Amino acid sequence: MSLTPSPAHEASDAVCLAAAPSGAAISFDAAFSPAPTTRRFVLDLPLTLRHAGPRTVVVRGEWTGPQDAPLVIVAGGISADRHVASSVASATPGWWSDQVGPGCAIDTRRLRVLAIDWLGADGSLDAPIDSADQADALAAVLDRLDVARAVAFVGASYGAMVGLQFAARHGHRLGRLVAISGAHRAHPYASAWRALQRQCVALGRSEGGITQGLALARQWAMLSYRTPEEFAERFDAPASVDAGVARCASEDYLESCGRRYAARWTSTAFLRLSESIDLHRVDPSQVRVPTTVVAVDEDRLVPLSDLQTLVESLGAPARLRQLRSRYGHDAFLKEGQAIASILRDALAGCAEVAA
Amino acid sequence: MSLTPSPAHEASDAVCLAAAPSGAAISFDAAFSPAPTTRRFVLDLPLTLRHAGPRTVVVRGEWTGPQDAPLVIVAGGISADRHVASSVASATPGWWSDQVGPGCAIDTRRLRVLAIDWLGADGSLDAPIDSADQADALAAVLDRLDVARAVAFVGASYGAMVGLQFAARHGHRLGRLVAISGAHRAHPYASAWRALQRQCVALGRSEGGITQGLALARQWAMLSYRTPEEFAERFDAPASVDAGVARCASEDYLESCGRRYAARWTSTAFLRLSESIDLHRVDPSQVRVPTTVVAVDEDRLVPLSDLQTLVESLGAPARLRQLRSRYGHDAFLKEGQAIASILRDALAGCAEVAA
Repeated sequence: MSLTPSPAHEASDAVCLAAAPSGAAISFDAAFSPAPTTRRFVLDLPLTLRHAGPRTVVVRGEWTGPQDAPLVIVAGGISADRHVASSVASATPGWWSDQVGPGCAIDTRRLRVLAIDWLGADGSLDAPIDSADQADALAAVLDRLDVARAVAFVGASYGAMVGLQFAARHGHRLGRLVAISGAHRAHPYASAWRALQRQCVALGRSEGGITQGLALARQWAMLSYRTPEEFAERFDAPASVDAGVARCASEDYLESCGRRYAARWTSTAFLRLSESIDLHRVDPSQVRVPTTVVAVDEDRLVPLSDLQTLVESLGAPARLRQLRSRYGHDAFLKEGQAIASILRDALAGCAEVAA
Repeated sequence: MSLTPSPAHEASDAVCLAAAPSGAAISFDAAFSPAPTTRRFVLDLPLTLRHAGPRTVVVRGEWTGPQDAPLVIVAGGISADRHVASSVASATPGWWSDQVGPGCAIDTRRLRVLAIDWLGADGSLDAPIDSADQADALAAVLDRLDVARAVAFVGASYGAMVGLQFAARHGHRLGRLVAISGAHRAHPYASAWRALQRQCVALGRSEGGITQGLALARQWAMLSYRTPEEFAERFDAPASVDAGVARCASEDYLESCGRRYAARWTSTAFLRLSESIDLHRVDPSQVRVPTTVVAVDEDRLVPLSDLQTLVESLGAPARLRQLRSRYGHDAFLKEGQAIASILRDALAGCAEVAA
């Protein structure tokens, strides 16, 4: 696969070098040094990828919260990144500012929150990436940060898949798991949906319309994240005929979603992370960490039945929390109050655990 | 929109000319003349298209059954055609041979079954086509066949939409309506799904991959016709990595669906008929013909709630028949027994009505 230019999420990552616990270099971004409770870092990690063998991968991470507080790993969908919440050091809103911050359900006054940019997100790793690789990278990051154990892993969507892998592969380093809208496998219908998205990208690439193919793939992804109920409310107007072509009420919205995405992401990053969802498989019985599974009835990608199977098969005490939301798979980003209530419940007592 | 070569469904349509009742030429295919109970015809019809104004359109049709028997119009999805069932004159299986034929639920020993190729299906009409245009074309065909009235219109998918239009616009010429998996409007979520299919075609066209774009659009359509339940049963195997790229279990199947479709259809026909579904709107209160509406719980294109609304709003006695099927929107093609039972019930007494 060829590369399109990588998006520049930040101007520079590596400014101030600090000695990493394991002896390898760990670099912190100087822009964040005045505020000790938020740190960005970049690591070079030797990692054996499940499908692509030994590689040295670059991991970009960020943590927020007291340095000596219990650590919680937070992970979102394939387009989420390490910047989970705004902080005194960076006012830019994070992708989960609703849930992570001082006084939030994931309270950064009492918990240290760690997140990474997914392996593959910068487009430089053009190889099959497994959710197990992401889990191993996170375990290696804990080593480098000299953290023996995370009190919790809170993952949503792809992040829930990686959380399950982390629990299965590094369970001795984890207190509890919250898995929102992500299961032990990709559902075959959702896999087909993503395979066709990748074909949109491939069609664009082979014919010279890389950006158009990527934007179209993202539109299809948006459709899978949302629901008929939402579309019926927002886009009820009849199709119109404009210059001899029919145009549906939702097209402007979807096209703008596609354009925004294609301006920020490379097609390689999209393809490799999309694939990674479909390569994901965990044996639930190998997860021996207390787990809260959150399911959304209307989710068209991760059906309730798969999450019921997951809960019934886990190798540790598990609880299923079920939501209804017109936002379907995106409920974790949209249903602030309901998700906060579940998180507070699931994380109760975490901040009191010794780091 | 440009044209790709039109598929040749048959070598020649117009061989034997017969005087049409209204005075215009109506031509019959000589190949079918030895068997009087099946006739194919081609008509040139002047028609005022709702979005494209006055045109002369070519309508290709076929009827089967005793010439003096009560006439039933049968119509299917946008890729269905006039050849509904095999007959002594043509052994080629029709698209609904399960339901139409001697002794079938739609019994060609006692009923005369009429069907047409959709306006736009041959790719020569490159303009927005409304379901109302199809209904008007069918009414004009009745004129030319000198048939005052159809005892029933049995439509599935797009055919149900056209049936509702026919009932609303030409209700005095119709005895009863059976509308399977088609409503008074396209659901906004399904419209978005189709709009993105059309973008696949557009991406292929603009970049030189017309066939690839059309094949990809068809794959997306197949996904909408079927269900997660079916995919979970058929394609449960994990994704594999082949030459450095992940491949899902359903991809071979979907790609072969796409290829087969793209070999038979033009992109213009696909675009115009896909649009036509999204342009469809009928005021249900204008349908004053007894109607049986058939809904499939698992249908991802035509949700049960829209068919419930339809039944509640129709301007005549209406009945909702509800099915469960892992084939979703395609149940009318796959659930032979259940559909036959509903059709027998809905059409009871039809054959006894004077033509």
